[in-house]
Amino acid sequence: VLSPYEFIAEKQRGNSHKPSEIHDFIQGFIEGEVHDYQMTAWMMSVFFQGMSYEETIALTKAMIQSGNRVDLSNINDPTGDKHSTGGVGDKITLILAPLLSASGMVIPTIAGRGLGFTGGTLDKLESIPGLSTALSIDEIKDLSFRNGLAFGAQTDDLVPADRRMYALRDVTSTVRSLPLITASILSKKVAEGIGSIVFDVKCGKGAFMETEPEAIELGQWLVNCAERFELKAAALITTMDEPIGRTVGNWLETEESIDVLRRKYMPPDIVELTESLGGTLLMLAGITGNIEQGINRLREAWNNGSAFDKFSQAVNAQGGDTGVFEENHGIYDQPRIVIPLTASKSGYISEIHAREVGYCGVLIGAGRKKTDDVIDPTSGFIFKKKVGDFVQQGEEILLIMGNDESQCKTVHNRLSGGVTIMKKEPAKTPLIRKVITREGNFEWLDYRNSK
Amino acid sequence: VLSPYEFIAEKQRGNSHKPSEIHDFIQGFIEGEVHDYQMTAWMMSVFFQGMSYEETIALTKAMIQSGNRVDLSNINDPTGDKHSTGGVGDKITLILAPLLSASGMVIPTIAGRGLGFTGGTLDKLESIPGLSTALSIDEIKDLSFRNGLAFGAQTDDLVPADRRMYALRDVTSTVRSLPLITASILSKKVAEGIGSIVFDVKCGKGAFMETEPEAIELGQWLVNCAERFELKAAALITTMDEPIGRTVGNWLETEESIDVLRRKYMPPDIVELTESLGGTLLMLAGITGNIEQGINRLREAWNNGSAFDKFSQAVNAQGGDTGVFEENHGIYDQPRIVIPLTASKSGYISEIHAREVGYCGVLIGAGRKKTDDVIDPTSGFIFKKKVGDFVQQGEEILLIMGNDESQCKTVHNRLSGGVTIMKKEPAKTPLIRKVITREGNFEWLDYRNSK
Repeated sequence: VLSPYEFIAEKQRGNSHKPSEIHDFIQGFIEGEVHDYQMTAWMMSVFFQGMSYEETIALTKAMIQSGNRVDLSNINDPTGDKHSTGGVGDKITLILAPLLSASGMVIPTIAGRGLGFTGGTLDKLESIPGLSTALSIDEIKDLSFRNGLAFGAQTDDLVPADRRMYALRDVTSTVRSLPLITASILSKKVAEGIGSIVFDVKCGKGAFMETEPEAIELGQWLVNCAERFELKAAALITTMDEPIGRTVGNWLETEESIDVLRRKYMPPDIVELTESLGGTLLMLAGITGNIEQGINRLREAWNNGSAFDKFSQAVNAQGGDTGVFEENHGIYDQPRIVIPLTASKSGYISEIHAREVGYCGVLIGAGRKKTDDVIDPTSGFIFKKKVGDFVQQGEEILLIMGNDESQCKTVHNRLSGGVTIMKKEPAKTPLIRKVITREGNFEWLDYRNSK
Repeated sequence: VLSPYEFIAEKQRGNSHKPSEIHDFIQGFIEGEVHDYQMTAWMMSVFFQGMSYEETIALTKAMIQSGNRVDLSNINDPTGDKHSTGGVGDKITLILAPLLSASGMVIPTIAGRGLGFTGGTLDKLESIPGLSTALSIDEIKDLSFRNGLAFGAQTDDLVPADRRMYALRDVTSTVRSLPLITASILSKKVAEGIGSIVFDVKCGKGAFMETEPEAIELGQWLVNCAERFELKAAALITTMDEPIGRTVGNWLETEESIDVLRRKYMPPDIVELTESLGGTLLMLAGITGNIEQGINRLREAWNNGSAFDKFSQAVNAQGGDTGVFEENHGIYDQPRIVIPLTASKSGYISEIHAREVGYCGVLIGAGRKKTDDVIDPTSGFIFKKKVGDFVQQGEEILLIMGNDESQCKTVHNRLSGGVTIMKKEPAKTPLIRKVITREGNFEWLDYRNSK
């Protein structure tokens, strides 16, 4: 058996680990024989020397074995999930999970919290008064079986190795390593017990991966390793330059998601992301023969109200007060401060910098700088205009909503620099760029039409 | 001010740290704001990305500032020290320090303990009953002032950052980094308050640096950085293939050193190392005009007994029982087990593998595998033959001495493979190869004759 020292030295020299060595190291970490300071030294070696698919799969397995798995074997319907690498205004899970569940899939979502400029599904859901995402593995299994939909948080016994490793990576600059990212995401998704998965790998100014080649590489890692766990997988490479939809902020985004599920209004970017990811997953899961049929199936569940009913049922089952879904519910106070950002000149909006919006969200309490920061559920931004829209000088582009006047003013100044207006109408960047499957990389529209 | 995360990320990207950033990081580490797991991630980044001389000097300064320094400003005589990178049977400090002190220098030695295959000066000295090396900074200063010689251990308040960083490097495979080695060695030597230093950088089978180019590189780092602290410095590149002298083991080596100081017998390798290192240091310190004069001065102190008197005085001052210096003192029991290793065939000894001897020493209790292992002061090896000697089949090459019979037998088997006998007389490798000064690298004999 290698000592932790020898294990670290092997990776430092650029050698490959054997699966059993990786298993022993992770097991030792869980049992306290491998110290945090050895784990971070090893992860920094992995950052520099990399790992093969084989090593990454062994790491993923060892991480899963550090805890328990959700056992969905008593469920006959296809199971699946969508995972996004994180964005600004990304509320797609809230809309897509009930749509998929209403289309014949079982979706035992295990979601995350916001950190830095990216938001988190759990924070959005928990802005619904009473709703708890602290589900045990048995509760996730039970809700999946009964309702076909659950929204859970990573529990203490679900991949505990990942939670501890991620906390260390977060403070030692080792988040950005493809094998470590892949093992972190996949271990949780495999432990969910699902049969298929679609990854939304975002690229752009408000994404973890800023360039398309980086996003494609991560997509390939995720899809190729997922296949080794008998998880049917595809990754969509999507643009993340401006915030998604019309809102950023936890309650604001939940409210928007409810409006979209009810078809009260349909922001084109939300609809396109939801349909593309959902249609792909329904095809992967074998519910429909191709993506187009999958999209039609989703639209059906959308139009006949069954998706919204699924969402209400899930919220209800997790203790949430669905009274907030009604107009003029009076449950929430509006934020005290609302400051509009107006156009400094007339022209076309060419940029609303998503990362800047995300960081500004942290300043007004809509996001977290550190994992233990407390969130203000009502603060955030409402976008009256989107990139490509024409504005007159003095017209409102967005509203800054919060409860701390001086922070709102700071954000107003900072966001003025994050919004660009130009004379010429900006060129359109496609929202869904590419799709990665185990067969290779394809242009999205070609693939969609061919399947 | 950079956060620990940002500081790590800068080095990870290959950027240079500013001196103030390095100071803040080390200060934060001492104050508990920078965690062990961040220190190890940073040191692993340094391993991969390196540091410049400027960064290394800033690190050394910051480490020194983590504690107190020995203030030798009340001493008029030149102060100095010798530092060895570690070897097997390396007892030179015990002999050289009193010789230098008897030659007009003040030597406030702060020495280390053995770890792995290398021995440590402190362990050897502490095999003298009663002798304590746990001196405070004030005691080191006081003994230096009164006797011109002290043998101290690194105290809690002398470069505490180094002790903690070294303990972490030792278990995360980040010992082998030139900037980290340089800062670790130099910080302690500068904190000793000395004016000149000679480094014994060993290379070969029983050395930390196995090849000459590696040893030369370390020598250059040490000398070039030392000069920036107004420390007159030179590094001798010396061969470390077979154990030095006729013994390995703590009391055995101390006994051998006493015999050498008394000129009872003079192993040529011990004499050559002692004279070369000492002559160079006396020249650096300005006591003699050149190396040859320095060597003559040492021989004088050796011949007239003043060096041995210095040693006795120092041992006495630190509580040691000088009764063990007498023949038939009866203070120590001989080890219970003595097993000879005999020649399997007649011929010339071409190798006695120093690293193997060192690791075998750990097995019989003469060394440490972990820092908290307890040492058996009397166990070790006596070499009846050295490399180049002719042996008859069945003749004794060395004695294995210990108190655990089965371990001694294991070592006997293992050491059979560490000793090689050949028909032809082996070619001689020079013991002192090169000297590194701030003027450049020179062949030792050329340099010695030119100075």
